[in-house]
Amino acid sequence: MATTSFTETELDEIFVFAIQLGKDAGKLLLEAAQLRFNGNGQSTQDFVEKDSAVDIVTKTDEDVEEFIKTSISLKYPDHAFVGEESYSKGSSRAYLIDDAAPTWCVDPLDGTVNYTHLFPMFCVSIAFVVGGKPTIGVIYAPFLNQLFTACRGRGAWLNETQRLPLIRNPIPPMPKNAPGGCVFSCEWGKDRKDRPDGNLYRKVESFLNMAAEVGGREGKGGMVHGVRSLGSATMDLAYTAMGAFDIWWEGGCWEWDVAAGIAILQEAGGLVTTANPPESPLTAKIEEVKVGSRLYLAIRPAGPSEAESGREGQERTVREVWRRVRELDYTRPGA
Amino acid sequence: MATTSFTETELDEIFVFAIQLGKDAGKLLLEAAQLRFNGNGQSTQDFVEKDSAVDIVTKTDEDVEEFIKTSISLKYPDHAFVGEESYSKGSSRAYLIDDAAPTWCVDPLDGTVNYTHLFPMFCVSIAFVVGGKPTIGVIYAPFLNQLFTACRGRGAWLNETQRLPLIRNPIPPMPKNAPGGCVFSCEWGKDRKDRPDGNLYRKVESFLNMAAEVGGREGKGGMVHGVRSLGSATMDLAYTAMGAFDIWWEGGCWEWDVAAGIAILQEAGGLVTTANPPESPLTAKIEEVKVGSRLYLAIRPAGPSEAESGREGQERTVREVWRRVRELDYTRPGA
Repeated sequence: MATTSFTETELDEIFVFAIQLGKDAGKLLLEAAQLRFNGNGQSTQDFVEKDSAVDIVTKTDEDVEEFIKTSISLKYPDHAFVGEESYSKGSSRAYLIDDAAPTWCVDPLDGTVNYTHLFPMFCVSIAFVVGGKPTIGVIYAPFLNQLFTACRGRGAWLNETQRLPLIRNPIPPMPKNAPGGCVFSCEWGKDRKDRPDGNLYRKVESFLNMAAEVGGREGKGGMVHGVRSLGSATMDLAYTAMGAFDIWWEGGCWEWDVAAGIAILQEAGGLVTTANPPESPLTAKIEEVKVGSRLYLAIRPAGPSEAESGREGQERTVREVWRRVRELDYTRPGA
Repeated sequence: MATTSFTETELDEIFVFAIQLGKDAGKLLLEAAQLRFNGNGQSTQDFVEKDSAVDIVTKTDEDVEEFIKTSISLKYPDHAFVGEESYSKGSSRAYLIDDAAPTWCVDPLDGTVNYTHLFPMFCVSIAFVVGGKPTIGVIYAPFLNQLFTACRGRGAWLNETQRLPLIRNPIPPMPKNAPGGCVFSCEWGKDRKDRPDGNLYRKVESFLNMAAEVGGREGKGGMVHGVRSLGSATMDLAYTAMGAFDIWWEGGCWEWDVAAGIAILQEAGGLVTTANPPESPLTAKIEEVKVGSRLYLAIRPAGPSEAESGREGQERTVREVWRRVRELDYTRPGA
């Protein structure tokens, strides 16, 4: 097993390296953004359009990925690398993380639209995946100066000083009436096709069920406390690990968007499984997330209540979400 | 006119006072939040519920309003005060800002749900309204350490050093195909009644029109670049003034949620009018917002293009939004 091929000391060293790499990459992102404050950088019109009007790629994105990739290959020449930018240029959309090879899975800039508009919710996302499991995660949002880090067995942290979740003495249980009382995080995404029962409509129907009053929507009304959309799957996961969001439900993003966030959320005590409800949502086994599945449902870290364990509360919440959401259709094109 | 009753020097002094007040109030909010990090504060269960499950009020909220109110009455005993907390306890929901009296309009804590979950998008909002016009605005989000300030004629600022909008050499024009290319900010709000053609459904229909592909939704598809929901009207306005959001459309909030944000957005060069489309959206006069109208449509500061002035681009965007959104039903209950 590749998981056993690192000593604790080696993992510690890789964790320290990953944190510094995240800080350095985030600094590059912020410096490039600050050029624009002063009118010396690219204008909005200069950005090259990719798949759709929603998918903007900047030169910064590519430069920062190159910086991260080079830094890793110099330090750890035997490790594999999967990055958003280099992957996007490939012809296949196959899942490239090999369970047998330790792999870095990197998004140099998550929240690209936010970045081009200077909305602060953008970040670099660096994961180290061992045996197919996200083992180290580093997310750095430089405009917010928020650094989220985790390494398996070493806890999850905000800015290296505050343990995640933030509220932890005690960690609150999931609300009894979840998704009532919950902050629900979701994204509109890039698939905006006006196709009857397409992903856009299935998403919106799901959002509506989660938001509507209890008793509404033919019993599906969840009356969540709030609905939030940040435009960054990575930040969504980071804030779920922090406990700021109770539930994140999304389809369509990729492994580099979520690998670091999954490492951090799991180490903080959160649960991640699939977004798509199984045939029997109330009884189906709650499987651990597949990193490349493009379908994610995350629940924040939860403490026990008098009635149930933290995990039981999370699983109850998963089932209550599944009961209210539609199945999404995101496959791996070309795979 | 009350607007002429302040000299420039007096306004300068009031601006300095308001900024310090915002910083001090924000510090109180953060200190109370940090108690919760350490398990010494209120638990989520302790919060008193108000109108609905979504409307949480904390003791902090009341304490901070009392601090702000007392500070103002000591310094400026002749000025009027309208605060969210004290207002909510009154029996009427009348609009209390008197055009003839200089009035402080304050929300001690906007984004209460965010605050209770420690999601960083919460802030204190302090406006000084003269002759019915928001003249000074101070918004401080202490967890983000972001301070937004403006005083008429003195520019709008982030953290007192960076002028708003952030991208300003030159300030980008509105996109030619707006709302295409725009980041669209909106909120699900508290009205979650499952009532056919009620506010919830009218909002979601409007969001869908803004998001769907061009040509979709019977020609209403706007294919915005991104849809964002932060759970704080005040932060929405601050980020629109910053240029991070291009469009903010919302109904249902109150004057203390928006007065400071309107002052900052207008001073930055943004436009604020009503959310509800007039009978002839393509030709109707674009009226300046009524602070107490509960219906808001804000457009970011915009520079000129070869084809039009910045103001023309903003007005074109207003009309394109009006063409896609439904009329919302928010009145002043009891008024």
